[in-house]
Amino acid sequence: MTTDIPTPKAPAPDIVRCAYLELVVTDLQKSREFYVDLLGLVVTEETENEIYLRTFEEFIHHNLVLRQGPVPAVAALAYRVRSPEELDHAVAFYTELGCRVERRKEGFVRGIGDAVRVQDPLGFPIEYFYEVEHVERLTWRYDLQPSGALARLDHFNQVVPDVPRAAKHMVDLGFRVTEDIEDAEGTVYAAWMRRKPSVHDTAMTGGDGPRLHHVAFAAHEKHNILAICDKMGALRVSDRIERGPGRHGVSNAFYLYILDPDGHRVEIYTQDYWTGDPDNPLVTWDVHDNQRRDWWGNPVVPSWYTDASAVLDLDGDPVPLVERTDAKEMEVTVGADGFSYTRKGDVEHGFKLGEQL
Amino acid sequence: MTTDIPTPKAPAPDIVRCAYLELVVTDLQKSREFYVDLLGLVVTEETENEIYLRTFEEFIHHNLVLRQGPVPAVAALAYRVRSPEELDHAVAFYTELGCRVERRKEGFVRGIGDAVRVQDPLGFPIEYFYEVEHVERLTWRYDLQPSGALARLDHFNQVVPDVPRAAKHMVDLGFRVTEDIEDAEGTVYAAWMRRKPSVHDTAMTGGDGPRLHHVAFAAHEKHNILAICDKMGALRVSDRIERGPGRHGVSNAFYLYILDPDGHRVEIYTQDYWTGDPDNPLVTWDVHDNQRRDWWGNPVVPSWYTDASAVLDLDGDPVPLVERTDAKEMEVTVGADGFSYTRKGDVEHGFKLGEQL
Amino acid sequence: MTTDIPTPKAPAPDIVRCAYLELVVTDLQKSREFYVDLLGLVVTEETENEIYLRTFEEFIHHNLVLRQGPVPAVAALAYRVRSPEELDHAVAFYTELGCRVERRKEGFVRGIGDAVRVQDPLGFPIEYFYEVEHVERLTWRYDLQPSGALARLDHFNQVVPDVPRAAKHMVDLGFRVTEDIEDAEGTVYAAWMRRKPSVHDTAMTGGDGPRLHHVAFAAHEKHNILAICDKMGALRVSDRIERGPGRHGVSNAFYLYILDPDGHRVEIYTQDYWTGDPDNPLVTWDVHDNQRRDWWGNPVVPSWYTDASAVLDLDGDPVPLVERTDAKEMEVTVGADGFSYTRKGDVEHGFKLGEQL
Amino acid sequence: MTTDIPTPKAPAPDIVRCAYLELVVTDLQKSREFYVDLLGLVVTEETENEIYLRTFEEFIHHNLVLRQGPVPAVAALAYRVRSPEELDHAVAFYTELGCRVERRKEGFVRGIGDAVRVQDPLGFPIEYFYEVEHVERLTWRYDLQPSGALARLDHFNQVVPDVPRAAKHMVDLGFRVTEDIEDAEGTVYAAWMRRKPSVHDTAMTGGDGPRLHHVAFAAHEKHNILAICDKMGALRVSDRIERGPGRHGVSNAFYLYILDPDGHRVEIYTQDYWTGDPDNPLVTWDVHDNQRRDWWGNPVVPSWYTDASAVLDLDGDPVPLVERTDAKEMEVTVGADGFSYTRKGDVEHGFKLGEQL
Repeated sequence: MTTDIPTPKAPAPDIVRCAYLELVVTDLQKSREFYVDLLGLVVTEETENEIYLRTFEEFIHHNLVLRQGPVPAVAALAYRVRSPEELDHAVAFYTELGCRVERRKEGFVRGIGDAVRVQDPLGFPIEYFYEVEHVERLTWRYDLQPSGALARLDHFNQVVPDVPRAAKHMVDLGFRVTEDIEDAEGTVYAAWMRRKPSVHDTAMTGGDGPRLHHVAFAAHEKHNILAICDKMGALRVSDRIERGPGRHGVSNAFYLYILDPDGHRVEIYTQDYWTGDPDNPLVTWDVHDNQRRDWWGNPVVPSWYTDASAVLDLDGDPVPLVERTDAKEMEVTVGADGFSYTRKGDVEHGFKLGEQL
Repeated sequence: MTTDIPTPKAPAPDIVRCAYLELVVTDLQKSREFYVDLLGLVVTEETENEIYLRTFEEFIHHNLVLRQGPVPAVAALAYRVRSPEELDHAVAFYTELGCRVERRKEGFVRGIGDAVRVQDPLGFPIEYFYEVEHVERLTWRYDLQPSGALARLDHFNQVVPDVPRAAKHMVDLGFRVTEDIEDAEGTVYAAWMRRKPSVHDTAMTGGDGPRLHHVAFAAHEKHNILAICDKMGALRVSDRIERGPGRHGVSNAFYLYILDPDGHRVEIYTQDYWTGDPDNPLVTWDVHDNQRRDWWGNPVVPSWYTDASAVLDLDGDPVPLVERTDAKEMEVTVGADGFSYTRKGDVEHGFKLGEQL
Repeated sequence: MTTDIPTPKAPAPDIVRCAYLELVVTDLQKSREFYVDLLGLVVTEETENEIYLRTFEEFIHHNLVLRQGPVPAVAALAYRVRSPEELDHAVAFYTELGCRVERRKEGFVRGIGDAVRVQDPLGFPIEYFYEVEHVERLTWRYDLQPSGALARLDHFNQVVPDVPRAAKHMVDLGFRVTEDIEDAEGTVYAAWMRRKPSVHDTAMTGGDGPRLHHVAFAAHEKHNILAICDKMGALRVSDRIERGPGRHGVSNAFYLYILDPDGHRVEIYTQDYWTGDPDNPLVTWDVHDNQRRDWWGNPVVPSWYTDASAVLDLDGDPVPLVERTDAKEMEVTVGADGFSYTRKGDVEHGFKLGEQL
Repeated sequence: MTTDIPTPKAPAPDIVRCAYLELVVTDLQKSREFYVDLLGLVVTEETENEIYLRTFEEFIHHNLVLRQGPVPAVAALAYRVRSPEELDHAVAFYTELGCRVERRKEGFVRGIGDAVRVQDPLGFPIEYFYEVEHVERLTWRYDLQPSGALARLDHFNQVVPDVPRAAKHMVDLGFRVTEDIEDAEGTVYAAWMRRKPSVHDTAMTGGDGPRLHHVAFAAHEKHNILAICDKMGALRVSDRIERGPGRHGVSNAFYLYILDPDGHRVEIYTQDYWTGDPDNPLVTWDVHDNQRRDWWGNPVVPSWYTDASAVLDLDGDPVPLVERTDAKEMEVTVGADGFSYTRKGDVEHGFKLGEQL
């Protein structure tokens, strides 16, 4: 049994929103084809080893950094804070927790100034920053926007072995839990948590961790997401559509999961709901409710439960995994031991794919 | 080896379009909930044992008849012909083929006048009619249309053991083949054929037959189809979503397959293409092309290949099945013996669901 | 009073559909920016003086030809016929009417073979052809399709001084009238007529003629049309949006009217309805019904009533105009003498723009 | 010249978001038809004289109250605050400003507990509350949602004679200005300001005031808004569509303005952008830019500039109007003295409607 992460006495940094992801890719050109040619992200700046990308409604320098490297991994999950002073809070908060903390006045990547990176108690490389270069916001530039235009970075999704332990730490950091998946015994399989008033800035998904499950970009309408699927078919990369499109139960958003050339998972997401009221109710889903992950009851593919991206420590080395010991969502819902239901009280084994499993 | 159906010397009836389906259901009230409350079809008329339904852009009396009966089955696939005289052509055409032919001046169902029913050489109960009651076309009645409004009956899809034999007969009847699925050895797995200038009025799908694979209604936009999925989730009948939503390769239409309370399959369909030019090119798909059935490469569920509705003869008795002896699409593409590819030349076993199969 | 155009004894050519428009433009480069860069039409072929364009679901060589010339005009409205022999019918039909007829085995434009051009009794340059070069149908090429992708050529709309006279001639030519606008006195202001089973292949709009009111391309969904508006805003050419977007009363289609650099009017159009049944009912609208032209009651701008493109005779000279002597729709519905109503029985002067007029 | 409203020393109440509008209507049954039958708002509760309504993603008791009364007017613009204690801040803040302040532990309307109402320095009746009854959030209830489903209350829009004076006061109250419309001389015609991280919770529009210009509800997608237009056509109330649908320049949202039976203006709105970053840039538009109000350059109808709803003081009496003395947007952009441009540098008089004006 793991012990709880203590709550620091130092105040948490005031986080505005999830802001960018730094991703290590093994073939920068292939990744460029995926993120720029296929998904239509806009190149703010590029060097021999890095590409800085943004969506059409981002007005800071980037919300995705691709960096050439030896193995696919996540180098940083970056949050924007409310003022420059919040970086001091971040330093104090994590120092008190005994975490490794590094601060660079000139930033860790281009476009960003003073920044703090930590390896947080869950093992993830987290960055906090306020100073950032502004660039043209392409909101009104419909002449540049493709049929599958991406508007914003919406959230991260992290894999951790112990979801309640991770969620408790995130609440200490100032997040609020908006939805979760549980079973009758109290096992928590996943939890969604937010700073901005949407369903999440990040989620904690149960599994061997720390790993990144996915990064999600928001589109405006459902047809934008369908257009990405159609384009992937036309480019004959439909085998990189992993799951969806569909409607989530959790979050109520319309979604699609696709895989980049290194297997990093990207979600395209639209239309979750307002959570900004102080008494926004927590929505809890039963892990056996077959509409929790897909409102239309379409099956979650096994890879979606098992695969995720390694994360790096501040030296750039992959962080070793801790195994999940709690019950696993895939096992309790799919296959020989699992069941899920469409209507509470019904029992349906191997839902919809039954005979294949 | 079955022998070819001869080409009659009598001219074929001039068919305008597929017009309505008569369906036997075992619980009329449950079926009403599905077709009226859930799908939003409009009731033109109903009796104790029958419900006459139509879509919002149909101006004849009905395009779906539900009739209470002892076993789920299809009582008639009805086509509208260009003039009253075409019924004489239908009689002569099928009489020459040795088929049982029945003509009723007063029609076989309400709303329809003079009509001919035959059990065609493929075993299906087919109706031809011209005379029909006109009703209010609800095209402009947006006050009545739900978010998933259905506009038109689009097509039938029939299961037959020998696709080329069936297709040849349909061509004799005046249909044109628009697309098909074949393999390198020349086996034909399915063929689409049309009278109206869309991809099809009906299709022939290889399998034990005669059976009806599905009936399809057209919606205007993709979001209308997604709205039906969302509604089925809200009503907790998502287990009746069998396949999709998705984009077809064949036809290029956006689709959804759902199952009514008796297991009759209904497709909701939108946005195929114009085929009305006299030299409209036949589009042939390789059975191993994993985008032929779903452009996004999402797997076809086994039930979609195996299940279909029995059809009745003119006495109302189920027509016995003839087994398919040619290779079966499911077997050559899914599971232990099958393979399909995203990019020609690649070999991928048990595509996307691999580890589960 | 003009006399009726006689009905030829010769059979009319069997027309499949409206197929392409040849347009004379005064600055080919500017027109290319409009049709290719802005609207996204695909260039099949281009020469110094001509550009051959097509939409994404056209499989013949082109459905729009731009030709550099001294004055903006329409050189041909082209229809595809059902077989090569139909050209003989076209020659006989128009010869009997005393029209000038020209036939060229090698075609009048690239991509087309044997073709007949006539100056029809209404004064329009009409082409008939069967032989045509096939090109790649880009239906499935979602990698090439912009957010405002155009799928098909849908219809022409012609301005004529005497609508019933023109409609009668078109019926002789094999067209069926699907909708019209009339007043209580029997004046006909416009009529829609079709060969293919949509609301129209062409329409006759009352005004000084012969002129072309517009050519219309079909998109799949309403958001595709909105995307064109958004792009025109981004390119700062919103002053070329003449009318709409909106929902038509007539045809029930969603529409947008924009103006090319020479003032040729282009409609983008989606989702009219099936008219292919032999007894498809004629829909008649009252000219004073303010929802006939825009279902939402938004005002028709005056230029839409008054402006149209000159047409050329077979020598390439502009055809002189004949003045409309019947009542004019703009005058009876807008401004000092006009009125229109939202609800029959109400009288509303200068509807919605009242105080400005 | 009016004097500035002083900045109180007392801290402003911490406002979460605009939360509900209380509207006085003269025929409750007619208003019910408009808001419930036409727009599809959900009735939480109703009495003989009041109807409490909410959108599908609202989880508090209501976001619109209709109250029967003698003259059409606005009784309260209500904001939700972050905690019960913020009501004390509201009392202190407005007391210091010399405003009339009223507090009721039991609330002013059903469903709300402890609340403070003030007549603010701009003359508007403003309510602050925290305590509120929770009701079922209908987010997932797709079985109840019509094609034009409304998701959230998005914003208010207020008419004030002196926009900079009003904006300064709102900034004192903790709002941030996101966009405005100015001219080269520095006249400010309108300003948008927010608490939640969207473009606005309210806007100040220049004109004789205090009046309410409109209340806006958010839909998810553009087609939802078009569905409302289509339905208004079908119900023959298209004359209550005042302006749009269209794309705003300011806010980049897709919009529609309609009028309720009393002439209260309702906007339906979707897809503005994230403004929650602390350094979110102010976007300023030139009043002569013809795309500022409608990105597609469609004309703003005069009534949209001139008409607005009276507001009531805390005794329920209409607040007298103060005339705007600054230049008026309608006059500087439309008609004899006005001009606007599509491309900076061009001069276009009476844009698009020129000849009519």
